[in-house]
Amino acid sequence: MTTSPIAEALRLPAGPVDLTAIDTDAAPGFDGRKADGKEALAAMEPELADLQERLWAERTAGSERRVLVVLQGMDTSGKGGVLRHTIGLVDPQGVRITSFKAPTEEERAHDFLWRIEKGLPSAGFIGVFDRSHYEDVLIARVRGLADPGEIERRYGAINDFEARLADQGVSIIKCMLHVSADEQKARLAERLANPEKHWKYNPGDLDERAHWAEYRRAYEVALERTSTQIAPWHVVPSDKKWFRNLAIGQLLLDTLRGLDLQWPVADFDVEGEKRRLAEETPVR
Amino acid sequence: MTTSPIAEALRLPAGPVDLTAIDTDAAPGFDGRKADGKEALAAMEPELADLQERLWAERTAGSERRVLVVLQGMDTSGKGGVLRHTIGLVDPQGVRITSFKAPTEEERAHDFLWRIEKGLPSAGFIGVFDRSHYEDVLIARVRGLADPGEIERRYGAINDFEARLADQGVSIIKCMLHVSADEQKARLAERLANPEKHWKYNPGDLDERAHWAEYRRAYEVALERTSTQIAPWHVVPSDKKWFRNLAIGQLLLDTLRGLDLQWPVADFDVEGEKRRLAEETPVR
Repeated sequence: MTTSPIAEALRLPAGPVDLTAIDTDAAPGFDGRKADGKEALAAMEPELADLQERLWAERTAGSERRVLVVLQGMDTSGKGGVLRHTIGLVDPQGVRITSFKAPTEEERAHDFLWRIEKGLPSAGFIGVFDRSHYEDVLIARVRGLADPGEIERRYGAINDFEARLADQGVSIIKCMLHVSADEQKARLAERLANPEKHWKYNPGDLDERAHWAEYRRAYEVALERTSTQIAPWHVVPSDKKWFRNLAIGQLLLDTLRGLDLQWPVADFDVEGEKRRLAEETPVR
Repeated sequence: MTTSPIAEALRLPAGPVDLTAIDTDAAPGFDGRKADGKEALAAMEPELADLQERLWAERTAGSERRVLVVLQGMDTSGKGGVLRHTIGLVDPQGVRITSFKAPTEEERAHDFLWRIEKGLPSAGFIGVFDRSHYEDVLIARVRGLADPGEIERRYGAINDFEARLADQGVSIIKCMLHVSADEQKARLAERLANPEKHWKYNPGDLDERAHWAEYRRAYEVALERTSTQIAPWHVVPSDKKWFRNLAIGQLLLDTLRGLDLQWPVADFDVEGEKRRLAEETPVR
């Protein structure tokens, strides 16, 4: 499998993670500007469409393979934008988006992975998690929604879970959308300034923002503890929306390319069917 | 609500239905050729995106409104093409596609509407049914999967069900993709001729095709019995793929326009939040 320069640059190396050392406004691995980036993303569409259709077709021949894109990031980091601009390039028939909000009472009565399991893509699908099981070691840690021993247990449980998914044919692409505190402030201000965006704003967002440093630390620990060979994390600089969209498109494209997807071979008598069709009693 | 010439032309009038009298190769209500049609569909994208976001936003303010597009048609009539080319124009976050295959054992142990209910879009969504509860009066009638009394009961049950959905804020757009037997034959032959399309071909398709006239009759009865004021049927000539895609885009656009969707008004103190953001303790 050949990895693109963008994927190479974004893949988190093993070891301690310091998010303050990763530039949120950069475009690593891409040698171009905004217009070039938008063009490069649009240019991926035909190949993404072809590979996604092959993945889908493979399923009809019994393949279990599927893809799971995990999107994590602070409020305003652009998970919705990725869904619209990058995932939107792919045939919606083959996409399953699952958004995880605050867990319901029923969900809280189960292990944290229970609802995640239910949201997984079936064979042939590209699944996308808009937030994920990582919330259970992020907000859960910052807001003390579980005790430290339980949080500690979860890192291992997540790694075991993802290893099992990989064994079942799930290719996992984990993306942390990395924005600066200043960029978040600008985006929140923009939402407040524009009445058409008021619905996206929640006063609770500012309460969470006050815990910025604790969230960053929670992300650093989570990234360090759960970036594995089989399911590595990618830190996607996301102050530039066009780079964020392009980068995730590239990660998806690399992953699909790496699957070496082939059109299924007919399991019926092709020539016989051609004859049947040619010789049928006229239909009208 | 203003209705477009296309919607006007496709809307099924009350009374007996004769599908042989409806040209499968026409482009009613549209005064242009293939290139114009593709351009007209692409030109809908910004307005569709805007309206869909408003529908989605409304949900956050407690609205229950949603849209349901029902796609029915013979094999190869292009339900998948509509999903890819028309529904693919809309932000995938706000779309829920449900494909109905042959019912499972569990589904068969329930009323035919049980699985339909579970596949409905939530508030704010554009739901699309790829096949639907209409299979239960189409293949079920042609193949005798239920006895005539039960089929008879279902027409009324469907009308009651759809009336209840409408009361709950669901705008229903029912589309019958109308292809000719010759066009189906050409499309099946194309699938057989191209190894990349073999996976789309199923020898059972030819067995169903042998019942073409019975299916047409089943459609005619279903259309006649279930085309109501609240949820009328549209017969979409579908030999021209571009017209089929355009027409369904237009029906969706008309429906969204008719909802007169407004951005929700903030339920928080906008000026107060602006001050809170401006005066926050520096975050980093």
